[in-house]
Amino acid sequence: MSTKKHPKKIYLPEDRLPKAWYNMVADMPNKPLPPLHPATKQPVGPDDLAPLFPMALIQQEVSTERYIEIPEPVREIYKIWRPSPLIRAYNLEKALDTPAKIYYKYEGVSPAGSHKPNTAVAQAFYNASEGVKRLTTETGAGQWGSALSYATQLFDIDLQVFMVKVSYNQKPYRKTMMNIWKGKVVPSPSELTETGRKILAEDPDNPGSLGIAISEAIEMAVKDPQTKYALGSVLNHVLLHQTVIGLEAKEQMEMVDAYPDVVIGCFGGGSNFAGISFPFVRDKIVEGKQTRIIAVEPQSCPKLTRGQFRYDFGDTIGMTPLIPMFTLGHNFMPPAIHAGGLRYHGAGAIVSQLLKDGLIEAEAVPQLESFEAGILFAQTEGIIPAPESTHAVVQTVREALKAKEEGKEITILFNLSGHGHIDLGAYEQYLNQHIHNYEVTDEQIAENLKVLDEMGFPKP
Amino acid sequence: MSTKKHPKKIYLPEDRLPKAWYNMVADMPNKPLPPLHPATKQPVGPDDLAPLFPMALIQQEVSTERYIEIPEPVREIYKIWRPSPLIRAYNLEKALDTPAKIYYKYEGVSPAGSHKPNTAVAQAFYNASEGVKRLTTETGAGQWGSALSYATQLFDIDLQVFMVKVSYNQKPYRKTMMNIWKGKVVPSPSELTETGRKILAEDPDNPGSLGIAISEAIEMAVKDPQTKYALGSVLNHVLLHQTVIGLEAKEQMEMVDAYPDVVIGCFGGGSNFAGISFPFVRDKIVEGKQTRIIAVEPQSCPKLTRGQFRYDFGDTIGMTPLIPMFTLGHNFMPPAIHAGGLRYHGAGAIVSQLLKDGLIEAEAVPQLESFEAGILFAQTEGIIPAPESTHAVVQTVREALKAKEEGKEITILFNLSGHGHIDLGAYEQYLNQHIHNYEVTDEQIAENLKVLDEMGFPKP
Repeated sequence: MSTKKHPKKIYLPEDRLPKAWYNMVADMPNKPLPPLHPATKQPVGPDDLAPLFPMALIQQEVSTERYIEIPEPVREIYKIWRPSPLIRAYNLEKALDTPAKIYYKYEGVSPAGSHKPNTAVAQAFYNASEGVKRLTTETGAGQWGSALSYATQLFDIDLQVFMVKVSYNQKPYRKTMMNIWKGKVVPSPSELTETGRKILAEDPDNPGSLGIAISEAIEMAVKDPQTKYALGSVLNHVLLHQTVIGLEAKEQMEMVDAYPDVVIGCFGGGSNFAGISFPFVRDKIVEGKQTRIIAVEPQSCPKLTRGQFRYDFGDTIGMTPLIPMFTLGHNFMPPAIHAGGLRYHGAGAIVSQLLKDGLIEAEAVPQLESFEAGILFAQTEGIIPAPESTHAVVQTVREALKAKEEGKEITILFNLSGHGHIDLGAYEQYLNQHIHNYEVTDEQIAENLKVLDEMGFPKP
Repeated sequence: MSTKKHPKKIYLPEDRLPKAWYNMVADMPNKPLPPLHPATKQPVGPDDLAPLFPMALIQQEVSTERYIEIPEPVREIYKIWRPSPLIRAYNLEKALDTPAKIYYKYEGVSPAGSHKPNTAVAQAFYNASEGVKRLTTETGAGQWGSALSYATQLFDIDLQVFMVKVSYNQKPYRKTMMNIWKGKVVPSPSELTETGRKILAEDPDNPGSLGIAISEAIEMAVKDPQTKYALGSVLNHVLLHQTVIGLEAKEQMEMVDAYPDVVIGCFGGGSNFAGISFPFVRDKIVEGKQTRIIAVEPQSCPKLTRGQFRYDFGDTIGMTPLIPMFTLGHNFMPPAIHAGGLRYHGAGAIVSQLLKDGLIEAEAVPQLESFEAGILFAQTEGIIPAPESTHAVVQTVREALKAKEEGKEITILFNLSGHGHIDLGAYEQYLNQHIHNYEVTDEQIAENLKVLDEMGFPKP
C-alpha cells in the first residue's frame, strides 16, 4: 500500500460543528424569483404559507440574511451523528489509477441513513417551538419519511406519513424504520383524505404517485389547524438546513490543506446537492474561485440538462404555489428507476437560478452506469451507496478518469448522501441483469411543457 | 439539554490504531485445555488442522505470546472503518434518568455492518499470504458470510458460502451483499457436496442448519488442496483478531479519563464479547481491577448460564475436534430467535475457562426484552441495533437502572456489535406482536448432555 499523507477519515471536532447555516440567497448575483399564486400570478406572501408551515420556517424561506443561527437544541441532536466524516477515497483512487484526489462527505452515518435528518430535526424543532402537535408529509422511497419520523418523536410530535403505495409494498423495511420511530404510515392513495378516497373510488388498485401523496399530506394539514406539513427538499429553508454538510466539508478539507476543483452531488429536488455545494458556490461568487460545481441527475429525469426554466407547480396535482424552476412539466411521470429520490420533475428556485446564471453545471447519468459505479465503490471503499448517491459516484469516476487522461492532479469532492442497506433489492435486480436504461424523447418533454403554455404559466 | 463534559463521539486518531492484537491466553491463570481428537481423545496438533487453515492461523490458535503484530496490509484495510467510534450514550442515560455513565463501542460502521470484518480481513490476508486461492465458509443470518465476502475480494480469493437455507430465503439482502463483494452463495443443504446431496436425497425440503452448512464447507475444503476453510467465531485466533475492539475502547476511554466498572457484550460463539472484554479481563488479572465483565446470551440458548463445562464438538454433525466448552450439547437445536448470531450451542475454550474461573459472568435475556431495548436505543441514540446487539443493550439498561436505585455513578461500557438495517423484518414482527419468548426446560438440556456421556466425551 502506498504511503498516506493524511488519515483516510477526517473528523471535525464536535465543538466545531457549524453554529449557523449558510443562506445562498445572500450572495447570489441574481436573486431567485418569488413563488407566485397560481390563480392571481402574484407573489405569495407569508400568510399564504401559514396554514402549512410554522412562521420561523416561512421567515427562513424568504430570508436574505447570510447566516442563520442553528438553534442549540438542534445542534445538540446533530451531535448524535455530526459532524459527519469526510473521507479520502484512497482505495477508489487506486482502483482507477488516477492522479485525482477524491474526497467524499458521508451522510449515511445519520439515524435514517442519509442527509435528510439535517432538515428533519430543524423542521421538527421549529414546529414544536410554535406548539405544533402533528405533522403530515409524503415519502417516495422512504428516506424522508424515516428521517422525519426520527425527528418528530424527539419533539413529541405525531407524524402521519403518506407513502407512495408501490414503494410501500416494495420497501417494507422503510415502513418498519418509520414505525420504530413512532411515525404512522399509510400507503397512498389512502382512505384518510378526500383526495385519496376519490382516487380509490375510481381505481381501487391505483399504485400512487408522489403527486398524490403530497396532495393527501397537504389536505390533511390544511383541514386541521393543529396540523402542519413538512417537505424534504426543493424549498429554500430545506436547502438552507442542508448547508451544514458543505460548511463542515470546507473546514475538514482545510484541515488537510485541500480545496476542491470539482464539487459533485446527485440531484432530485436539490437538497443534498445544495448542502454540499452552496458554501463552495459562495466562494466562486465572493472570492472568484474557479470551482466546477456539478449536479448529477438521472438520464430518465433530465430537468436540469433538458428541461425549461419557467414557472411550474412543485407537485403533480397542482396544490403548491408556482415556483421558478428548471422543469420537465409537473405532469412528467419519471420512469420507475430505483433512485426514487431523484424522480422529481423540477428543481428548486435557488438551484435553478444558479444553473441559469452558469454558476453550476449539470450532467445526466444512465441507470446501468450508476449501479456499476455503486458496486465499484462498495468493493473499493467498503460502503454500499444508496441508488441516488451512485449518480454522484459516476460523475466522480468520469472526472477522475479524465484527470488521468490529462495527467492532472485535480481534487474532487462529492457527497455520498446515503447508504444503500434498505435498497439492496435494487442491487439484486442489477446483478441479475433485470435493470435497464430508460430513454426520454424530446417529444415527450415538449408535450409536457406545452401544458404549461396552455395553463398560461409565466416564463421569466 | 445538559452541559456535556466531553464530546458524544470519541474518535481515536488513525495513527493510534493498535499495532498488535492482544492474546488473552498469555495472562490466564489457568490456560485453556487443548482440543482433542474425537477418536483418540489425544490433543490435536497443527498437522490435524493443516487441511483447513493456513499455518499462520494455526500458530495463532496455539500461541501464548501476549501481543501478536497486526500485519501492515491488514491495518491499512482496517483504516477504511477503524478505529471505530466510542460513543457516550448521553441520550439513553437521560431517558433512563440514571447516574450511570454509559459508553458504547460501535462496530456497525464496518463494511458488512458488524465486528466480523475485523477477523475476516485478517484471515483473508493470511490465507492469501500462503497462496490460498479459494475459501469456503458457512453463514447463518449472513453477517459472517458478507464480512468474509468483503475481505476475500480484496485479496483476490474466491469464496463459496453455504448459507442455512431458511435464512437464505428469509434474508435475501444478505445474499445480495455477498454478491456485491463477489462471494458465491448457495442455500445449504446444497448439491455441491456429498453431505448436501445425501441430505437432499432423503429430504428435498430440508431447511438446513448451521451444523449442516459447516459440514458442507469443511467437506469442500478438505477435498481440494487449493481450498481452505474459514470460521467466524469460537476459535482462539478469531477472538484474538477481535481484541482490536477492546484495545481501541480502552484508549478512547483514557482520552476522557474514564474506566469501566462494567463491560458488557452479547454472546454467540464469543467473538464480539471477547473483542470488547479481553483487554479488560487482562487488567483484572494483571492489575487487580474489580471490573465486572458480563456475557449476555439469549434465554433460549443458555449455554453459559445453564450449560455444562466439558468437551464437545464445535459443530452439530461432529466434524471438528472436541473443544473444552460450556455447552448445551452439540445436538441442541436453538429455537428460531431472530438473533441468529447467538444461536450456537457452545462457547469457545478461552471464554469457557474464564467463566469457570470466575473472571467473567453471564446473564440470559428473553427475546421480547431484547427488542424492547433495541427500540429504546433506536429512539434515543438514533441507531437501530442488530438483534444480537440488543442483548447487550438489555444488560446495560438493567445495570443502569440498578445504579439509579443504588444511587451509584458507575461507568458502563458495552459493545454495539452491529446495526440492524438488514434485520428490520425482525423488528417488524416485534412491532406486530408476532414475536414471543422461548423457554428451554432443564429436561431438554439434560437430555442433550446425556448424549455426550454416551459418546464418552471427557469431562475436565
